[in-house]
Amino acid sequence: MQPMKLAMKPMRLSEVAALVGGELVGDADPEIRGVAALEDAQDGDLTFVARSALLPRLADSSATGVLVGPDMAPELPAVRCQDPFRAFGVVLGRLLPPQDRLFPPGIHPTAVIAEDADVGAVASIGPYCVIGAGCRIGEGTRLGPHVTLMPDVTIGSNCELHPQVTVREGCVLGSEVIVHVGAAIGTEGFGYVTGDEGLEHVPQVGTVLIGDRVEIGAGTCIDRATTGATVIATGSKIDNLIQIGHNVKMGRHCALSAQTGISGSCVLGDGVTAGGQVGIADHVNIGSGVRIGAQSGIMKDVASGASVFGSPALDVGEAFRILGAMRKLPAMLRRLAKLERESDQE
Amino acid sequence: MQPMKLAMKPMRLSEVAALVGGELVGDADPEIRGVAALEDAQDGDLTFVARSALLPRLADSSATGVLVGPDMAPELPAVRCQDPFRAFGVVLGRLLPPQDRLFPPGIHPTAVIAEDADVGAVASIGPYCVIGAGCRIGEGTRLGPHVTLMPDVTIGSNCELHPQVTVREGCVLGSEVIVHVGAAIGTEGFGYVTGDEGLEHVPQVGTVLIGDRVEIGAGTCIDRATTGATVIATGSKIDNLIQIGHNVKMGRHCALSAQTGISGSCVLGDGVTAGGQVGIADHVNIGSGVRIGAQSGIMKDVASGASVFGSPALDVGEAFRILGAMRKLPAMLRRLAKLERESDQE
Amino acid sequence: MQPMKLAMKPMRLSEVAALVGGELVGDADPEIRGVAALEDAQDGDLTFVARSALLPRLADSSATGVLVGPDMAPELPAVRCQDPFRAFGVVLGRLLPPQDRLFPPGIHPTAVIAEDADVGAVASIGPYCVIGAGCRIGEGTRLGPHVTLMPDVTIGSNCELHPQVTVREGCVLGSEVIVHVGAAIGTEGFGYVTGDEGLEHVPQVGTVLIGDRVEIGAGTCIDRATTGATVIATGSKIDNLIQIGHNVKMGRHCALSAQTGISGSCVLGDGVTAGGQVGIADHVNIGSGVRIGAQSGIMKDVASGASVFGSPALDVGEAFRILGAMRKLPAMLRRLAKLERESDQE
Repeated sequence: MQPMKLAMKPMRLSEVAALVGGELVGDADPEIRGVAALEDAQDGDLTFVARSALLPRLADSSATGVLVGPDMAPELPAVRCQDPFRAFGVVLGRLLPPQDRLFPPGIHPTAVIAEDADVGAVASIGPYCVIGAGCRIGEGTRLGPHVTLMPDVTIGSNCELHPQVTVREGCVLGSEVIVHVGAAIGTEGFGYVTGDEGLEHVPQVGTVLIGDRVEIGAGTCIDRATTGATVIATGSKIDNLIQIGHNVKMGRHCALSAQTGISGSCVLGDGVTAGGQVGIADHVNIGSGVRIGAQSGIMKDVASGASVFGSPALDVGEAFRILGAMRKLPAMLRRLAKLERESDQE
Repeated sequence: MQPMKLAMKPMRLSEVAALVGGELVGDADPEIRGVAALEDAQDGDLTFVARSALLPRLADSSATGVLVGPDMAPELPAVRCQDPFRAFGVVLGRLLPPQDRLFPPGIHPTAVIAEDADVGAVASIGPYCVIGAGCRIGEGTRLGPHVTLMPDVTIGSNCELHPQVTVREGCVLGSEVIVHVGAAIGTEGFGYVTGDEGLEHVPQVGTVLIGDRVEIGAGTCIDRATTGATVIATGSKIDNLIQIGHNVKMGRHCALSAQTGISGSCVLGDGVTAGGQVGIADHVNIGSGVRIGAQSGIMKDVASGASVFGSPALDVGEAFRILGAMRKLPAMLRRLAKLERESDQE
Repeated sequence: MQPMKLAMKPMRLSEVAALVGGELVGDADPEIRGVAALEDAQDGDLTFVARSALLPRLADSSATGVLVGPDMAPELPAVRCQDPFRAFGVVLGRLLPPQDRLFPPGIHPTAVIAEDADVGAVASIGPYCVIGAGCRIGEGTRLGPHVTLMPDVTIGSNCELHPQVTVREGCVLGSEVIVHVGAAIGTEGFGYVTGDEGLEHVPQVGTVLIGDRVEIGAGTCIDRATTGATVIATGSKIDNLIQIGHNVKMGRHCALSAQTGISGSCVLGDGVTAGGQVGIADHVNIGSGVRIGAQSGIMKDVASGASVFGSPALDVGEAFRILGAMRKLPAMLRRLAKLERESDQE
């Protein structure tokens, strides 16, 4: 199997430079007909080199042009720019399929829309969408096939909801929010009390508030609050298959990698990042700018700016010192036994 | 962004006392117009204090009334009751949106229902539901939009299946079962044998049996048995994004937190609780009442009543003693080296 | 609750022997009316014993016939064969519900199919499927209800896509691919650069290529590549709730257990196996035949043929030696202190 290559409208490297706000290096101005990572690039492709250390690999590449950082001097025809990968992203944006093909304009005749729902300005509502009573959707928002909005959902402008997304009653999304395939927003949290016949569900009458420019991954679940709201603030990015418990308050510009789980009533500051499969126990406060290593388990509060790792999580420096020492443990056991023998013989 | 507050039909605190079977404390009988957690409560709100240690925080709260335990004497107008959080849940139950708004009565005209399916007594079948041949659904059960029942599924009375739920052929749900958005019940388990052309799937001809009052979280997957049945017994609660392997037998009143995975053929007793992201290897027996800490990994049987933690999981006491000792490991290395130097010098 | 038993068309044990290519042992040729695991088997059932060590359990079983390995001599009427569990699977295959009941032949009238989509040879398209412009689907492929194919998806022959599956634009599936309930193929990866207003999404213009006979579990997410393709090669099996990041290249005949996550740009060789809840950091290379224990976390390359375990993962031998030594840690602390006291007294 060969990966298909997207047909790109050809452009000169000088046009790439203009597009990304960079500087064409050298006299050559080749035609660019595709894009690819360094190791996959073929004749006609534009690629990028993000770090000087990777520059030598260009020698083995068939790329025709390269985006490089301000201090790099490659052999290939190049565009110098502040952030080569970001500039590469700008070029990629030119290759996206036309939005009208993915989200055909207008309301598909099979969509079931409550009479009092306000969808007048919506750009696209796909086949088999279900939009409940009292919903309001802003201008330019696009819904893929099979999106379900339960009653009284509010969605801002220019959002993108992919197929099979469900938003439960009363939840609120800001503008430019992207929700990927099959995500579930506003499901009831896991709150129980012990009653006469076992566990009794505590009604979850709160909601979910999602800020602007938030992105929510495929299959991710965000529980509604018991009272008040579960909050994901502006600009935060949440990867696939993540669990956000009821009453979590997440700050701005956080980035959580896939399969992470945040238990109920946690508070995260701004700019928190988490690797994949992180778990955070309930009612824990995570300060702003905290960095959490993959698979960490956090059982107590973490101060702003800290980097933590491990389960239970420790300061990353201490965690790695312990991990290093652990590899010496079997030898330590032998060394300890030897000392004990010597001590006995005295 | 401010969390929206649900409009509550106002009630006197004495009415709250009557509703929850509690005792009004003091002479005041203020009007309650909303509900909120202690830290969010504003004028007019009812809140609760579950533990005496939290009572002092009431001084900073704007709440108008509070539910407290039998031995607490708060400054605020209060209702004393056996279990304040459970009583709070009873009040929350009064605030749920009307079921008819979420699950409009009757069968939506877009539902595709097999001719021989028995859905006569179902309370609500939402838009675009698909109900296969031979299905039987009990009285008062509600299906949200886009629910798919493959052929020969049996569902008891007063169940609630949220949008995008799929139940595969032949599975059986009891009564008062709640299944959240996008859960998948009865998918084929991960069973293979090595054949001539790599892995060959072993047909999974068993089914899934779900007892009464079971709750199944959003995105959770429960695999059908190879032969016989995967069983989730009465009253068990399963959070979001959980994996239950084929032929698992789970007892009554278990509670599993999000992202936990139980491998094939495990047997869990009654009342087992698991924190989030727990993993259990296949064919493991977990006794009744076992408590499993978050992120634990269980590789062998656990006796009834035990509390375990860690990966691989140990008795919780031993696990924490080891974790405590691990933090001393780097220092132990230095101490050991010092002793060795001293020993050499002798 | 009793598991329902599938009604099997009765067959003689000698017919079972012929079906699985085995040898009937003894003179009895009883009638087989059902199948069950050893511990569940009742009168009339066929069961299997995969290992000699389990043979004594047959004494307590009510099974009527048993599949055994070449070197076993059970008391019960038996069929001897090379691989008893594989043979059992062959018999199970006879018990699957008829495909026509699960996937009724033809195109359901509610399916929304783009005019230029090529679905002429598809065996079954279920209710409420949505098939976008430019899609091509091969002969004999079956789509359950609510399957969404965004534009320009290519699917080979004899595939099975279960309810609620979504395949995003431009992705390619081979033949005999099985995709379970709610899986999402081709969603955008988690790729960002830091821009002026926080994180900016890097457009993901690549695709996903799935080889022949691949199986993808319920709720699993496979991200499309930034450029080029995310690849899952022939014969690989991916369990439920797994995350595959953008640009991953997975070899042939890999088997990943549930809730595993593979970060972006990882390369896996052929025949890699992973237990449940494994995590692999981005850009890591895993050689062919590597075996990864459950809950392991892999942060760096692993050589072909290795077995690794732990988080961070180590060679499985070293990992278990360390785990064994860890249980002695609290005692080591005491032994070390005793030696120090003795050393001080000298």
